[in-house]
Amino acid sequence: MRYGFLGPETTFTHQALLQALAQQTAGEPAGSEEAVLVPFTSVATAATDLLAGDLDALMAPIENSVEGGVSGTLDVLAATSDITIVAEEIVPITFVLAAREPMQLDEVDQVASHTHAQAQVQGWLRANVPGAAVVPASSTAAAAKQLVTVPQEETLGRAAICSPLAAEHFGLEILARGIEDTPGAQTRFVLVTRDGRIPARTGADKTTLVIQLPHDRSGALLEALHQFQTNGVNLSRIESRPTGDALGRYSFSIDIEGHLADRRVGDALRGLRRVCPIVHYLGSYPRADGRHPATSEATADAAYDAAHEWVMALSRQITGR
Amino acid sequence: MRYGFLGPETTFTHQALLQALAQQTAGEPAGSEEAVLVPFTSVATAATDLLAGDLDALMAPIENSVEGGVSGTLDVLAATSDITIVAEEIVPITFVLAAREPMQLDEVDQVASHTHAQAQVQGWLRANVPGAAVVPASSTAAAAKQLVTVPQEETLGRAAICSPLAAEHFGLEILARGIEDTPGAQTRFVLVTRDGRIPARTGADKTTLVIQLPHDRSGALLEALHQFQTNGVNLSRIESRPTGDALGRYSFSIDIEGHLADRRVGDALRGLRRVCPIVHYLGSYPRADGRHPATSEATADAAYDAAHEWVMALSRQITGR
Amino acid sequence: MRYGFLGPETTFTHQALLQALAQQTAGEPAGSEEAVLVPFTSVATAATDLLAGDLDALMAPIENSVEGGVSGTLDVLAATSDITIVAEEIVPITFVLAAREPMQLDEVDQVASHTHAQAQVQGWLRANVPGAAVVPASSTAAAAKQLVTVPQEETLGRAAICSPLAAEHFGLEILARGIEDTPGAQTRFVLVTRDGRIPARTGADKTTLVIQLPHDRSGALLEALHQFQTNGVNLSRIESRPTGDALGRYSFSIDIEGHLADRRVGDALRGLRRVCPIVHYLGSYPRADGRHPATSEATADAAYDAAHEWVMALSRQITGR
Amino acid sequence: MRYGFLGPETTFTHQALLQALAQQTAGEPAGSEEAVLVPFTSVATAATDLLAGDLDALMAPIENSVEGGVSGTLDVLAATSDITIVAEEIVPITFVLAAREPMQLDEVDQVASHTHAQAQVQGWLRANVPGAAVVPASSTAAAAKQLVTVPQEETLGRAAICSPLAAEHFGLEILARGIEDTPGAQTRFVLVTRDGRIPARTGADKTTLVIQLPHDRSGALLEALHQFQTNGVNLSRIESRPTGDALGRYSFSIDIEGHLADRRVGDALRGLRRVCPIVHYLGSYPRADGRHPATSEATADAAYDAAHEWVMALSRQITGR
Repeated sequence: MRYGFLGPETTFTHQALLQALAQQTAGEPAGSEEAVLVPFTSVATAATDLLAGDLDALMAPIENSVEGGVSGTLDVLAATSDITIVAEEIVPITFVLAAREPMQLDEVDQVASHTHAQAQVQGWLRANVPGAAVVPASSTAAAAKQLVTVPQEETLGRAAICSPLAAEHFGLEILARGIEDTPGAQTRFVLVTRDGRIPARTGADKTTLVIQLPHDRSGALLEALHQFQTNGVNLSRIESRPTGDALGRYSFSIDIEGHLADRRVGDALRGLRRVCPIVHYLGSYPRADGRHPATSEATADAAYDAAHEWVMALSRQITGR
Repeated sequence: MRYGFLGPETTFTHQALLQALAQQTAGEPAGSEEAVLVPFTSVATAATDLLAGDLDALMAPIENSVEGGVSGTLDVLAATSDITIVAEEIVPITFVLAAREPMQLDEVDQVASHTHAQAQVQGWLRANVPGAAVVPASSTAAAAKQLVTVPQEETLGRAAICSPLAAEHFGLEILARGIEDTPGAQTRFVLVTRDGRIPARTGADKTTLVIQLPHDRSGALLEALHQFQTNGVNLSRIESRPTGDALGRYSFSIDIEGHLADRRVGDALRGLRRVCPIVHYLGSYPRADGRHPATSEATADAAYDAAHEWVMALSRQITGR
Repeated sequence: MRYGFLGPETTFTHQALLQALAQQTAGEPAGSEEAVLVPFTSVATAATDLLAGDLDALMAPIENSVEGGVSGTLDVLAATSDITIVAEEIVPITFVLAAREPMQLDEVDQVASHTHAQAQVQGWLRANVPGAAVVPASSTAAAAKQLVTVPQEETLGRAAICSPLAAEHFGLEILARGIEDTPGAQTRFVLVTRDGRIPARTGADKTTLVIQLPHDRSGALLEALHQFQTNGVNLSRIESRPTGDALGRYSFSIDIEGHLADRRVGDALRGLRRVCPIVHYLGSYPRADGRHPATSEATADAAYDAAHEWVMALSRQITGR
Repeated sequence: MRYGFLGPETTFTHQALLQALAQQTAGEPAGSEEAVLVPFTSVATAATDLLAGDLDALMAPIENSVEGGVSGTLDVLAATSDITIVAEEIVPITFVLAAREPMQLDEVDQVASHTHAQAQVQGWLRANVPGAAVVPASSTAAAAKQLVTVPQEETLGRAAICSPLAAEHFGLEILARGIEDTPGAQTRFVLVTRDGRIPARTGADKTTLVIQLPHDRSGALLEALHQFQTNGVNLSRIESRPTGDALGRYSFSIDIEGHLADRRVGDALRGLRRVCPIVHYLGSYPRADGRHPATSEATADAAYDAAHEWVMALSRQITGR
């Protein structure tokens, strides 16, 4: 099995993929087929390889708690009809200060990192290593790697800001953990395959859709949301994306609570399919948090089945059928 | 075939039944089975005979444009689960002044009628036969019949207020038509059977239901109406009836545009069945006015079928099914 | 103060009026103005006297838990614009078997009552006084009164079915209480005045309306209900009444939880007034059950006031105002 | 008056600002105060200068028909409470091929442009100037400017891809217009001020809001949309933005049809303010397309005023007020 991920190695996407694999193999016998992990520079190129059969699955970030939807992933998902989301992973976005050898914080005189990561820890740096020079690296992974590739005597007083995974991967000492200025950030990742198989219902599932609304009438969003509401289906995420046709035209990327195999989800999808020009089903998969949705008796499978049987029985009484 | 109706003979219900039979036999070969018409004093007793097999069908008033729902009929329909509405008839409520022999209005010195009918024509009487004495009769039919049962010499100057059908039935001369003070009143009647067969869809149909709402949450009426709205189903009548349990608890007698065989109606019924503790289906039948409902592409059968196929096809991809 | 009620004396309406007066005078000093109670044979005639100034207030039944809305009262309320509901009373509909002198049930050989009441106790009669002859009276009050107006020796073995109030009023002995076959029935009454004054808010209030929907668009009922919903206003009663114009046209008689002085009620009324051709406000008054409605922070007066202030402040920034 | 814009000079934002100024000065006397136009490298820095008083107004892109909401602008607007949108401009996104001197397309052997613009015209380039070398420039403006700053003899066979404004600004010859591969793209810009004055209503206006939904209940988006619907207010744009607190939490950037001075807009805002924890009003301003919204009688100012008067009149009848 070949798995693509948004690289380079030790990115948070890499970590999400390792998390997913650890769960998958938890109950498997030793010696089962080995996973090959392949870093990519963009989700689009990895998706191309997935569709071409060079990959079996692909891990990509879909949503960040600070910056919102990850456009690159959302647009690939919206545009590609032969791929399916089969799992989600949530990874806390946290940084460490790491070095080749243990040292005190006041011994640190140079800190390397990627600009983006630096921006998220600058308050901590000012407060804790005010005298250290900050030097740029091409990625947090590169900053970490550099510490183990240069001669040891050159690493005195040098540290890197990187992910916990990178520190572990390159065998670094962790000088400080959780150094990000606003703690609690998370990124959500999805594992995507191309064989079209939808994971079985677990009872704590999510379903991802992209819908486009009709442009010719106001109230179309309300109408679409009523299809969810009359079936007791909750939305856990809704994000607009432009359709590219004209100003003010959007598609909506939506996560709902429940699985395609839940009757209430199936009926909501049927309703949407009627009222929306485009409904793109992207998959049903277990929720990372394992939480079961609160549903009422009126939206349980049994209620749908009973209602269906009742209408079928009545319909058999129609003359000349 | 034995048909019951709310009597006595020549009532508006009698006329509704004659209308219905005329339509039924319009295209039939001569010599087909004869209809026997049986007057009843109440809808409840006629319904008992219908359920016992002594009648094949029953015509009853359901709604009057002036006085609203006819409680007696609505309650029988709500309480009885083995009967089906198979047709509706609309009859204009209009009165004539009739006599045994032709005469001028100023020759009329006595007018007989039932109190109820008199109340509806009293303005006309004051204006057109101000000098005539008004005498009560047990029904408009009785008032009409009396004119032909007494010796002819006694009918001089005597007239009756009755239905056009009564005048025709008893061979009376019509002195004036449409003498009701507020013209345009109509009564709607339904033809009810007990064999459980539902007439085939014509494209211009109505469906009648009685629903009871859950008592434990506000907004239940709104929730039920949304089941109609999300399926593009219009209501042509909604009337509250007490459930008899407690103050403020109602069932609703509802007519919707469309036939059980319409996918949008079937899906609305399935939704209602889930959210309402009681949904009593009373029948689907051709509309008296022959009007086809305005429906959109999103609520046509084809849209439901396509949406259903789509969800079915997706569902076949679920692993381990 | 002159109070009309639907008579004769000792009816349930009479009892409702006595209940209302007992509450009013609970806290008043002795010697305050005496109430004169006047029985009427119909709500319509009493309403005419009220409007003419011959009465100060009128008690009338509005809703029965078994038979639903009381058409006579609802139609008078809908048609009259200068009257206001100022109180409601709820009276349990219960019957007693009463006699002039104490006796055992097996000594009863004749039971008098009004046909209507008899129908509600016939099961009890068959089970408890199977040998007694049942004789009709013009009213339950008349049945009770008769027992005290005939010579005492004629009352041996005679009993009457009547209201508890009638038994008390005529000084009868109660042989059995609560003899109705289906217990728990209630009737709700309203006290109506013509001076246009609306009782102050108590926090546990109801408001009564009659609304007529626009006929030119489907979904009008849904639209009206949304005006309540967006303001968090619950309906405790909704009943259809025909408008008299045509089949399928109704007005709705509605009770809502809350007082005109509640901001959420005022805003719901404003919304209704815009979307309905007719909104007839009939009064706000304390609830008989004293229950406070469950409201959220978003529909408290403070939320409305804050929102109003905010929009006003913004509006003052509009140029050239 | 000092106006900031997202630079450098000749960007589409620059063009939007020139459009806006041309409209403003159309009816003004000659010699009125001159506008100073100041390019900025980011909306955030321009906003800082605006708030500091160094600028009077700021033009910024808000929405692109291909790429959707412009995050930089949306986030500045959402985060800043003392600024107001006073105008919108829509600019077609179109490119020209320009040169210092007229020449035939087959004479072009080098084309300079910014990578971003090149991506949008690469199909046209392959088809029309297949032999030309494509060389990068730091911006389309820089590519155009270079043609006039180098000695004339060096410009032989050299062309630039730039905006029509850039070609005009630098006095270039236009070799081809509308060379973008997917025509019809537009960007919408807003003019923002800090003096808090809201432009007067024109009848064809838009209002921009940022709202945040309560997290503690599902259906919150539906509830917010109902506040618009019950007031007949249409949405012309709705875009999600993460709140930064947690996954799945969004604010919504919304444009509605109408002006704060429209009663239906004022009432929708009051409703939103009650049900949403945050409602940020960003301004009401004339629509670029001058289109008047379709409104019904029920949502005209007169209907709101009449409804308000009615409730006020009723409220004066409340006792003890």
